[in-house]
Amino acid sequence: MRYGLKNAETRELEKLSYTLRGEIEIAVAQNGGHLASNLGAVEITLAMHSVFDPDTDKLLFDVGHQAYAHKLLTGRSLSGLRKKEGISGFLSPSESACDAFVSGHSGTALSLAAGYLRAKKLTGADYEIVALVGDGAMTGGMSYEALNDLRTIGGRVVVILNDNGFPYGNGGIDSGFSAYLDDIKASKIAAPFKCYGAEYIGVIDGHDIGALTEAFKKAKESNGITVVHCITQKGKGCKAAEDAPERYHGLPRPSFGKTNEGITFSRAAGEGLTALATLDKRIVAVTAAMREGAGLSGFAERFPDRFFDVGICEAHAVTMSAAMSRGGLIPFAAVYSSFLQRGFDGLLHDVGIMNNNVKFLIDRAGLVAEDGETHQGIFDVGYLRLVPDIVILSPENTEELKEMIGFAAGHEGAVAIRYPKGAPPVIPERLKSFLTRPIGENAVLVSGAFAELEALIAAEICREKYGIETSVRYVKKLKPLDGSLTEDLKACKRIFTVEDNAVSGGFGSAAAEAFSCDGSKTVKIFAVRDAFPKRGTREELFCAEGLDGETLAKRIAREFESKQLGHKSGNEEKK
Amino acid sequence: MRYGLKNAETRELEKLSYTLRGEIEIAVAQNGGHLASNLGAVEITLAMHSVFDPDTDKLLFDVGHQAYAHKLLTGRSLSGLRKKEGISGFLSPSESACDAFVSGHSGTALSLAAGYLRAKKLTGADYEIVALVGDGAMTGGMSYEALNDLRTIGGRVVVILNDNGFPYGNGGIDSGFSAYLDDIKASKIAAPFKCYGAEYIGVIDGHDIGALTEAFKKAKESNGITVVHCITQKGKGCKAAEDAPERYHGLPRPSFGKTNEGITFSRAAGEGLTALATLDKRIVAVTAAMREGAGLSGFAERFPDRFFDVGICEAHAVTMSAAMSRGGLIPFAAVYSSFLQRGFDGLLHDVGIMNNNVKFLIDRAGLVAEDGETHQGIFDVGYLRLVPDIVILSPENTEELKEMIGFAAGHEGAVAIRYPKGAPPVIPERLKSFLTRPIGENAVLVSGAFAELEALIAAEICREKYGIETSVRYVKKLKPLDGSLTEDLKACKRIFTVEDNAVSGGFGSAAAEAFSCDGSKTVKIFAVRDAFPKRGTREELFCAEGLDGETLAKRIAREFESKQLGHKSGNEEKK
Repeated sequence: MRYGLKNAETRELEKLSYTLRGEIEIAVAQNGGHLASNLGAVEITLAMHSVFDPDTDKLLFDVGHQAYAHKLLTGRSLSGLRKKEGISGFLSPSESACDAFVSGHSGTALSLAAGYLRAKKLTGADYEIVALVGDGAMTGGMSYEALNDLRTIGGRVVVILNDNGFPYGNGGIDSGFSAYLDDIKASKIAAPFKCYGAEYIGVIDGHDIGALTEAFKKAKESNGITVVHCITQKGKGCKAAEDAPERYHGLPRPSFGKTNEGITFSRAAGEGLTALATLDKRIVAVTAAMREGAGLSGFAERFPDRFFDVGICEAHAVTMSAAMSRGGLIPFAAVYSSFLQRGFDGLLHDVGIMNNNVKFLIDRAGLVAEDGETHQGIFDVGYLRLVPDIVILSPENTEELKEMIGFAAGHEGAVAIRYPKGAPPVIPERLKSFLTRPIGENAVLVSGAFAELEALIAAEICREKYGIETSVRYVKKLKPLDGSLTEDLKACKRIFTVEDNAVSGGFGSAAAEAFSCDGSKTVKIFAVRDAFPKRGTREELFCAEGLDGETLAKRIAREFESKQLGHKSGNEEKK
Repeated sequence: MRYGLKNAETRELEKLSYTLRGEIEIAVAQNGGHLASNLGAVEITLAMHSVFDPDTDKLLFDVGHQAYAHKLLTGRSLSGLRKKEGISGFLSPSESACDAFVSGHSGTALSLAAGYLRAKKLTGADYEIVALVGDGAMTGGMSYEALNDLRTIGGRVVVILNDNGFPYGNGGIDSGFSAYLDDIKASKIAAPFKCYGAEYIGVIDGHDIGALTEAFKKAKESNGITVVHCITQKGKGCKAAEDAPERYHGLPRPSFGKTNEGITFSRAAGEGLTALATLDKRIVAVTAAMREGAGLSGFAERFPDRFFDVGICEAHAVTMSAAMSRGGLIPFAAVYSSFLQRGFDGLLHDVGIMNNNVKFLIDRAGLVAEDGETHQGIFDVGYLRLVPDIVILSPENTEELKEMIGFAAGHEGAVAIRYPKGAPPVIPERLKSFLTRPIGENAVLVSGAFAELEALIAAEICREKYGIETSVRYVKKLKPLDGSLTEDLKACKRIFTVEDNAVSGGFGSAAAEAFSCDGSKTVKIFAVRDAFPKRGTREELFCAEGLDGETLAKRIAREFESKQLGHKSGNEEKK
């Protein structure tokens, strides 16, 4: 059902807030997702929809995880939230014209506002530009680059600052910005926004629809940038979430029985690092608002003086870590794969040139379920491989992850360890022989714990269904590419690489670079095709990419057919 | 000669300022380099050296192009400035322990200060942390991420704000920050820095050594962050530079006769874009403080309302452009290859996912002479190839660049055009036949205008010296990889790729990805080896990478030897 709320009565909107909260709570209980942040933004969203037009105005959400109410109001059901056939947990223009712009990474809305404002002026178009900005987004530097630029443009932009006092649900990062806002709350300084040429309206109770509507209307009459400062309560309306907003920031999809055994990679990373830190005082942990997610809560409790959450600013996290290493520390920067992209220049300029002693714990690497395009960890192999001298590792399981953390601490220079979300899959015993048998004519080289399972299943199907014998090797060291491979692959004529990383510049590409000049073997790359994978379960994503065991086997067999090779031309040891 | 200036008399320092200015002017006249910015920072540097200890304290320069006086005072001669055997034009720890950290990209010093401050506290080390920050650096968002973080750490950091009113010499970008500083100058608002918890000392005459010394001493007594706001004159002491600081910001190395004919790629880009913009009102130009360098001065004059220099913030430039494109404009973002790294996340998240209609003019791509590691444009092929759906083009010459700009404007979706600094090399007529003859068993695929010349020279040497016949193809389209190649390479058994881009994930890698599964041909990659190339002339850099024609020919011949192929097994058409 699509709601038309333009100039709706406040009482009508207030009634609607209960409906929206109910739908949000039910959807998150069923599918997982961001709870507390969405509950906190219900009234703001209702007021936005009553003052602005979601069809024509540019409503920019930053971060995009506070848009569930907006989705409901624009006629989208949350019942399929974060599922393959349902709707995205973030803004998605391909899903609705009311989602003006993609928004999964933080701190983009003000830059987008600047772009729309310039476009509006030059094209003569008529729309309002409204940026709903969380306080967490204001820890990111691009917001300041944008504010700085916005003042030079001139023209109306309404910035709604959704201040819930919990930037990104990390229990209140002491990022300085909170203190900065405290000043504003207390009306001590309205100057900071003013010095960027912005008008300031505040402080507004972010759950008082009447007050919000009035403030937005006032902002809509301005001819410049107006910041409407709203104080909201994260988790509003849900007792449990109000009491523990950090815990209810984002909830996983409920699992009904079917879980992998063992601990998650994130937890193993935290445990491994904590254990190591007890032995070596130089070890410190850095993250960019991913304490919980990256498994560092235990470390933070044990070593509060050696744990640094800098807010949602990955670029600063990387460059700051580089200086830490020069100062004699061994920083481990724990950042998700998709967010480390924001520190790419620092990887080259501040870490790479001096090969500084910084370690990267890259969580959520590979195909990531449910969150969709913006959160896929499929580019890190490609961009990390550009950094000269860095060592890139990818563990098979959590024990190996811990060992790699130990190796990284002892290695002088940059090391990156990438691993997927969740616990590693269980490899059935019967498949393990593919990993150890000598390599004959056909070798499957695989990187990534989940890709490994699929590659092994493919090897079994290849044997049973297509009569093709292969050996499988898990490649732990992506850069420099595991040197033992050259000897190991001596008899090999056909290399098949498997990874749940992007096809361009990834692991397969590294193998092609290494072996394509040799003339004795072909390299066929199986990887995430050259597009942004949408949301789904991990299994669905692997299938969609043709990287599930069955499809992989089919694709391997097809290579034999296309070259008109007999299926029996497999490994020598085949009977 | 090494100067020890600790607690030196002001009069002594004043005398020294003349010596330093003389040496800087001579060095820049001989070797090119940054003139106006260095002349403006002489007194600040002298005062820094008298109050702080360059051997033990962390003196962080941001941007790094204002450190010539620092280099002289720490015993380095400028006579070989920017030359292969001389010293770098930027900070370089491999050159001197007095250069605490690499600094070629802007806006890193405050993040580095945060890292050093944390390291100092944890290790108990004793040093001062001093960041000399240009006003241009404060247009970059990471400075705010760092300021925000710094206040949470606690402890002394001295920030010297070198305010010359010309962020990055672009004739005063109206980036808002100037106005922001104007407020401070007029003492209207000292609040902006204070709200980050910083003490503020200012305004100081940045050429009054006595006043500077006193201010630095005072800052050194503080226990927190202190910002010393210095007003300086760019080009100070050199009449010509004082009068035209933009023109004298950076000077090229003087050329004595030997120049390439024809216009530079930068100029062609500007001309092409301007011509197109007269026909299509939607076309706008965006840059991040590279107006002059990227050849856009003409465009800016002709279309002041459609030219946007956002300051030194590439991330914002990319994301802002993405929104512009959604608003119906066709933005051409002109950014150097090494700086576009800073907009990498926006390339994926804001441009890539929606395949927005943004065009990138990537100047200074490939090996870049004189500036050294921080300015090499050798990673863009690798990181751009990760963006799904983007079209990556690389013109052979300036005419083709103009055509490509026309193509880009008409193509719906993201397009990146990369081209080197300077004018294209002249290809001797006698070599051109290698480009058009049918491809036999050996093909050299090349990308990049300067690499093309070397590849052609190599082809000639291969024939004359080694009896190896090859054909050469210039590949203009790197992504998607030129489709005609598959047919063209049908008879080919050996592909040699040549590029002045990094070996990992680059053009050769794309060729290996495409052809390594085929089994009928090998792919041997000749590219910039996996390290940061140092400074030198372009010719020196090509030689150092083994990418000059002679070495390339040798390397090709070696491939034949290593595979024990007869040298006469060349193309069929060989007599």
